[in-house]
Amino acid sequence: MGEIQIIPPALERLVRSFSALPGIGTKTATRLALTILRKPAADAREMAAALTELHRSIRLCSQCMAFSETDPCSVCGDPRRDGSLICVVEQPADLMAIEKTDSYRGHYHILHGVLSPVDGIGPEELKIKELVSRIKSGSIAEVLIATSSTVPGEATASFLIDTLSSFAVKLTRLACGIPMGMDIKYADQYTLARAIERRSDAS
Amino acid sequence: MGEIQIIPPALERLVRSFSALPGIGTKTATRLALTILRKPAADAREMAAALTELHRSIRLCSQCMAFSETDPCSVCGDPRRDGSLICVVEQPADLMAIEKTDSYRGHYHILHGVLSPVDGIGPEELKIKELVSRIKSGSIAEVLIATSSTVPGEATASFLIDTLSSFAVKLTRLACGIPMGMDIKYADQYTLARAIERRSDAS
Repeated sequence: MGEIQIIPPALERLVRSFSALPGIGTKTATRLALTILRKPAADAREMAAALTELHRSIRLCSQCMAFSETDPCSVCGDPRRDGSLICVVEQPADLMAIEKTDSYRGHYHILHGVLSPVDGIGPEELKIKELVSRIKSGSIAEVLIATSSTVPGEATASFLIDTLSSFAVKLTRLACGIPMGMDIKYADQYTLARAIERRSDAS
Repeated sequence: MGEIQIIPPALERLVRSFSALPGIGTKTATRLALTILRKPAADAREMAAALTELHRSIRLCSQCMAFSETDPCSVCGDPRRDGSLICVVEQPADLMAIEKTDSYRGHYHILHGVLSPVDGIGPEELKIKELVSRIKSGSIAEVLIATSSTVPGEATASFLIDTLSSFAVKLTRLACGIPMGMDIKYADQYTLARAIERRSDAS
């Protein structure tokens, strides 16, 4: 008698679907599926409808490649934002994080990934040629490269700098250093070394 | 500019649906929804179909109250299992955990909760009268009360013992003590005290 006979097939099916998501193991998937089963059927139907609707409603903004229901998206279509400044990010979640700071008023460009030769992800797999086309259009003054401070993020940034340096645009990067509110003694040595190297004028 | 304008409504709808699940905050829900958006639409459709199917296919077994697509469920309907022994558990997940041990061959009874007056859960909210009916049917010899070793679990067990003691059935509990493989010095004092109190013959 294994677990297989004990879990009804319809439950098993949902568990299998949930456990295909990153960070969700069989145990969590089972717990979630059982919770849904205990809640009213209307809740499950609403989740099913949201899932069905998802790919149907959302496309990529033809300018910045963000997920959006409109084209251009709400950022690219906002006349109050500065279209001469493009912030290049890896994923939509990075855009959301930057928007949350309320301190960026330019446009974006979503790469939808980072260079990762091991996973077969080269420049062709990212939205780099779309970025180059935008820059070629001539109305861009500055490209802020905001990839993550990880090995693949840095490699992607280097590749972008190489690719874009021939264009008449200013290329910038996010500042690297000690996080706000962090005690120096808890900073990792690489961050600390970078912070010393890039120290700014205190006056 | 808040996050609201940045997340497309169709994505927001799925995020809202996911974050209603226990242990899933807005951040995790967003991460999951974005993952689903990046995967093929067929995966989202499969998850939607599994959700729609769930409540339609699964009902409660009229004997043990387990979630099942058949009535009686696969356990109650298995002639090789001992129907004179009933193991009473709080939730379907407890049944699955016991089945995994491969060391129980009786039937089950799922209470679908524990007594919790603060949450308004009294005996009427649990499948206790269904358990009493089964015992009244006369074919039950032993009831193994396997509620959790928590305060509400123990309260539920006490209530069951009170309720069932007037019937001609043997009432048993799971053994309490030091977990297998645990170093004595790491056992909490209550478990250790219980293990000493209920010490068994070493011969």
